[in-house]
This record gives sequence, C-alpha cells and structure tokens, in this order.
Amino acid sequence: MKTSPHVQTIERVNLREKLSLFDTHWDPKIVGELNGQHVKVVKFVGEFVWHHHDHEDEMFLVHRGQFRMELRDREIELRAGDFLIVPRGVEHRPVADEEVEVVLFEPASTLNTGNVTSERTRATLDRL
Amino acid sequence: MKTSPHVQTIERVNLREKLSLFDTHWDPKIVGELNGQHVKVVKFVGEFVWHHHDHEDEMFLVHRGQFRMELRDREIELRAGDFLIVPRGVEHRPVADEEVEVVLFEPASTLNTGNVTSERTRATLDRL
Repeated sequence: MKTSPHVQTIERVNLREKLSLFDTHWDPKIVGELNGQHVKVVKFVGEFVWHHHDHEDEMFLVHRGQFRMELRDREIELRAGDFLIVPRGVEHRPVADEEVEVVLFEPASTLNTGNVTSERTRATLDRL
Repeated sequence: MKTSPHVQTIERVNLREKLSLFDTHWDPKIVGELNGQHVKVVKFVGEFVWHHHDHEDEMFLVHRGQFRMELRDREIELRAGDFLIVPRGVEHRPVADEEVEVVLFEPASTLNTGNVTSERTRATLDRL
C-alpha cells in the first residue's frame, strides 16, 4: 500500500486525554498515523452491526472497561490491557454492556462498518 | 510491502501476561501481526543506541513505567498511557532510568537498531 509522505509533528499523545475530548459512541477518532495505518480511539456502548473487512485486519486494544467481540462461532471477552486481532474476512460484532474505551489499529483505508453501510457508518473521521 | 497470507488464530492477548514471560531488556517479542505490521512488547532499562529507520515509522506505547525518547533536538517524556510515533528517518534513542514496559507497533521488516548494527541488534525475534 502506498501513502503520500506525511509531515508529522513528533509529539507525545496521551490516550486518556484524547478520549476525554468526545463522548459519542461508535465514532472513531484518528489520533496517530504511521506506515499507512491509523491509530484511533473509540467509545463503544451497546451492540454494533455485524460486518467484516475484505482487505483489512483490525486490532482492538481495550484502554478502559470491557466488551465482548462476537464472532459467528463464539464470543471473546476483552478487558483493559487485552487486545484482539480480527483478520480480514472474519465477521464480527463488538458488544459492550457498559461504555468501553478502545484503541484501534488498522489500515488508513478501513471503514468502521466494513462491508455494510448503516447509520453507524463513518466515512470521514475527525482527527484529534 | 507484501507479506505472505497468515493463518492466525483469533484469540485474546493480554499485555501484562505476555510481559510476564520474559525479563530481558531491549529484546522485543512479537505478540501480534496484522496488515504486515507487528505488535511487539519490550522492556527497556538504561540507554539504547542512537539510530533511525530508513523506511519504517515506529510507534511506542507505554504500558507500565516511563521513559524518555531522545531526539537530536529535544527529549520527550512518556508515561503509561502515552504514545509517540517516530517517523522514518528521524534519529532517536530511548532512555529509561528505571525499567519500563512498552508496546511497539511497526512494520514486520523493522530491525530494532535500524541503520546501526550493535550488540543490541536483534535480527530474529521470539513470538510469545
């Protein structure tokens, strides 16, 4: 994958600080970019939509709280300090009984709802 | 960058657990792989070597403790929950007064000492 050269200021990013800047759910914010990948922070609560990504593997790292990742054949519980990599092509649905804060790591091309378009789709993301 | 398709089990990874499996310093361990990138965990103490990476941006996310990233023109202090992205080409040297645990995110091709070969160079990394 090619990306245009980015001019990036080299600065410390604090996850808690970035997460304090918004209170929307299922609305990822870009907080870093490297090697054509985005680092995002997001808050989940409730159930997302079932989807997959044809070309992107996705990493979910729990910063605060907990959620479960539903796969078609099982569920995986994730707590602060846990991460999960969902390979491309694998259907998944994050579900959080209470609000959870998550760091996402995925290619810059990744759309949050993957192959599905819904009211949850965020085609353009804010950068914090 | 091309990577061979990887068959990956989908499983929860706990950072603390992985970090408890070794006590060496400057010796990154691979704990995840996605989109041609590696997720690594590493423990630092003391001073590393000055180096840069010609083709890779590197992300350092502090899991426990603190360290400072020395750049040629300044230093950046990083504590748990902070991350820093060092763009390709930028000389840097991590220094930790006390042991710190760090998550690295970088292309699978990344050599820990970049353009420099020293006794600190780790050409092949364990997977935990």
